[in-house]
Amino acid sequence: MKRALLGLAAVCFAAAASPAQAPERRGGAREYVGAHRHEILREFVNLLSIPNVAADRENIRRNAAAIIEMMRRRGLSPRLLEAKTEGAPPAVYGELLTPGARRTLVFYAHYDGQPTDPRQWSGTEPWKPALRTRALEAGGELIPFPQAGAALDPEWRLYARSASDDKAGVMAILSAVDALRASGTKPSVNLKFFFEGEEEAGSPHLAEILSAHREILRADAWIICDGPVHQSGRKQVVFGVRGVTSLDLTVYGPLRPLHSGHYGNWAPNPAMTLARLLASMKAADGRVTIRGFYDDVEPLGEEERRALAAAPQYDEELRRQLGVARPEGAGKSLLELLNEPSLNVDGLRSAEVGAEARNVIPTTATATLDMRLVRGNDHRRQVDRLVEHVRAEGFYVVEREPTVEERRRHPLVARVMRRGGYNAERTPMGTPLARAVVAAVQSVSKEPVVSLPTLGGSLPLSIFRESLGADTVTVPIANYDNNQHAENENLRLQNLWDGIEMMAALMTIGEF
Amino acid sequence: MKRALLGLAAVCFAAAASPAQAPERRGGAREYVGAHRHEILREFVNLLSIPNVAADRENIRRNAAAIIEMMRRRGLSPRLLEAKTEGAPPAVYGELLTPGARRTLVFYAHYDGQPTDPRQWSGTEPWKPALRTRALEAGGELIPFPQAGAALDPEWRLYARSASDDKAGVMAILSAVDALRASGTKPSVNLKFFFEGEEEAGSPHLAEILSAHREILRADAWIICDGPVHQSGRKQVVFGVRGVTSLDLTVYGPLRPLHSGHYGNWAPNPAMTLARLLASMKAADGRVTIRGFYDDVEPLGEEERRALAAAPQYDEELRRQLGVARPEGAGKSLLELLNEPSLNVDGLRSAEVGAEARNVIPTTATATLDMRLVRGNDHRRQVDRLVEHVRAEGFYVVEREPTVEERRRHPLVARVMRRGGYNAERTPMGTPLARAVVAAVQSVSKEPVVSLPTLGGSLPLSIFRESLGADTVTVPIANYDNNQHAENENLRLQNLWDGIEMMAALMTIGEF
Repeated sequence: MKRALLGLAAVCFAAAASPAQAPERRGGAREYVGAHRHEILREFVNLLSIPNVAADRENIRRNAAAIIEMMRRRGLSPRLLEAKTEGAPPAVYGELLTPGARRTLVFYAHYDGQPTDPRQWSGTEPWKPALRTRALEAGGELIPFPQAGAALDPEWRLYARSASDDKAGVMAILSAVDALRASGTKPSVNLKFFFEGEEEAGSPHLAEILSAHREILRADAWIICDGPVHQSGRKQVVFGVRGVTSLDLTVYGPLRPLHSGHYGNWAPNPAMTLARLLASMKAADGRVTIRGFYDDVEPLGEEERRALAAAPQYDEELRRQLGVARPEGAGKSLLELLNEPSLNVDGLRSAEVGAEARNVIPTTATATLDMRLVRGNDHRRQVDRLVEHVRAEGFYVVEREPTVEERRRHPLVARVMRRGGYNAERTPMGTPLARAVVAAVQSVSKEPVVSLPTLGGSLPLSIFRESLGADTVTVPIANYDNNQHAENENLRLQNLWDGIEMMAALMTIGEF
Repeated sequence: MKRALLGLAAVCFAAAASPAQAPERRGGAREYVGAHRHEILREFVNLLSIPNVAADRENIRRNAAAIIEMMRRRGLSPRLLEAKTEGAPPAVYGELLTPGARRTLVFYAHYDGQPTDPRQWSGTEPWKPALRTRALEAGGELIPFPQAGAALDPEWRLYARSASDDKAGVMAILSAVDALRASGTKPSVNLKFFFEGEEEAGSPHLAEILSAHREILRADAWIICDGPVHQSGRKQVVFGVRGVTSLDLTVYGPLRPLHSGHYGNWAPNPAMTLARLLASMKAADGRVTIRGFYDDVEPLGEEERRALAAAPQYDEELRRQLGVARPEGAGKSLLELLNEPSLNVDGLRSAEVGAEARNVIPTTATATLDMRLVRGNDHRRQVDRLVEHVRAEGFYVVEREPTVEERRRHPLVARVMRRGGYNAERTPMGTPLARAVVAAVQSVSKEPVVSLPTLGGSLPLSIFRESLGADTVTVPIANYDNNQHAENENLRLQNLWDGIEMMAALMTIGEF
């Protein structure tokens, strides 16, 4: 019953979001951005120059201090929100209350970035922002930052760790405040700002921070500025995210590395054991064969299915761009597949390969796996199922280093090291809030906004619901080909300019 | 017919080698060693202090120069034997002709060592030799090198790259010359010495060197001093070695690393593809499933089977020591399995694991494989079979980097990079030469010498037959638990003392 009602609501909402009925409201923000591109870029480059891996406690604090200073200049009453856990990266909070406003929105972004190996970057370094004429893969060349006043090509790309994920969010949100102020536009809601410092580490202290500061974080909804826009370049509003959990899976061979000539064919090879175990987890078409893997999945509602059907199909173009000759998923589209749980190998390691390889039987082999979760999945239970699968394959499973005796006694030994995680989250697509958010984004967009039930990526949005009972809506701004989480991360400049307009539109959101 | 005759000969030979009929002839060498341990150790430590990876051209030349100097001091007329190929590591040659001798033996060892990552060593460095009270794995503790005159415990271990593999061979051979000279013992044969400088790199220029210096290398047989003694600690004489070949196998995923949330479940993961491919190559019991893998194997003769049956069975103890709960090979013994070809994964690599892992779909995954070969196998043909297997699994196979177009067109793309190799070699076990070698080694050993048709490891002995038509017999001296080819390589001191006696006994070998 509830589902049917929501289905109806989604129809209305889809109508409300169509460009015909939501006239463009760009106005002040676009003018402001046009006149201040160099200043915005300069401030952004400064922020991107501070290394921001969550585990790098000292630099994370430098980032937080820089953001505090950026917010202080804008009169946003900034402060650090600390976790109870000593040394955890703080969140940065600020606010701009609007006299007479009934509603409050919190604007979220995160200022930490994924760890990265600088040697893997091509011609630039993660924390030395650099400009290219277009994407590296498209032959983009390095150019110096232009003098103030010179034209900035909107297709240029800014290369740096977190240029897109997710300091772009911080920058777009704070610049939107400038844009409103410069054009004398009053926000329609109370504005709160929350910038997290360890999202890429799995947000281990976010629940602590939210609970400890529940009062000042009181709001009607959170706008999550993170992730990429749709691959077609169309702006998108996303009502959910997948959950994620990851683990290290190590299997064991002989107690010491053995000469492959003297012991090969006799001493079992852990690299081969790992290969066999991984191969047992997933069929060639991508279907995960772990028992119960899909059992908890809460099916999509009518309105969510409709949204999926209405979303642009971009798979063919993606296949060409990414060199994917045959996708997994047995014919399902990428968007459909993102509404299913997944199992991915992040990396493999056993001894050495190539020029550094030696003719040995290694002692161990390790795979790091990540699992994405959808509504209905629980991250601990999903790992439990994987562990059960490993056991069913004949392994003796430990969650610590196995002892010598255990390795002597059990032919197959696996160590599972859980690396934490969080569940998926999905806000209903048919509410007045949802409608207002889409309308706001549509107001600064010529093409129809894409609305999706879930993003493929993960954000700890379930934590907001669990800690604060808060609805979240995700409004990404980065280009989809941003090399997020990898080397050569970048942001297309036009995506930053558009992002500022989108955030400004959300700060002047209509009634909900 | 030939086989039956050889079988008979093996019986005679086995009789000749029994301790009852070959009285100990230790004599001078043992006394010499007993009186000169400190000097021998000092000279050895100097030699081990020179880094000796074959690719490190400069240091390889320093090793060759050091050995030239060691041989000059002994009056062995040393010289470098260069390959035609510019820059290839030279062999070091020397000789000591015996007036009136009819026979000539060449003593072979190699002075280069396997590449190694110093950070993997525990408490010592590869080219800073160090002494431990026993094996590291048995709790051996570091001790300083004792003052001259102090007792040297025979169970102490010398830790350094090539302490056993194979500078121990160089040291034992040259010290044996000293021992004979000190005791006024005349060699029974002409002695030639040949120390190779790139065995661990697969001896790519050995054939060139042998062919270019065919005249001075003329001899009745080569004594190959390399590899470990039997796991029981008994001395062994080995009449063959396995061949070896290796290759890098790389499979491909998307053109750029992809966020596992936004593309997981859709873009195929090369780490998983590699796991599936490797798992297809070998059954859980260790049987290689590549078509034709065992087809060319020349069965063992009667005498070789008898030798295997007579060899000590040490598998149970090895299982305990190495932590191998269930060996591969479906019940066959280690010694039997070493007479079959093998497939081993030397290492795996795809993106990163553990703390450095990121939630990405990697672009490639690589395994380095080695294959051991027995008589009948050809190393190129064996790799061809593997390539055919990869094709049969549905892969488009290239032997260079695939193009973007190839990756777009073919769902499964594999790159095979052949890393060279050589074939197995086996000298018949029933000849007078074989009998004389075993008798010589038996003369310095209380326990019966183990005779084996083949060593599990590989040496480029087929090259000696192909280039010079030479018979080779392998007489190893290193302890079997020497961590050869891995970190923490070591030599048990008693094995060096025994090795010197063995080499001296071979220099005074009986009639053949």
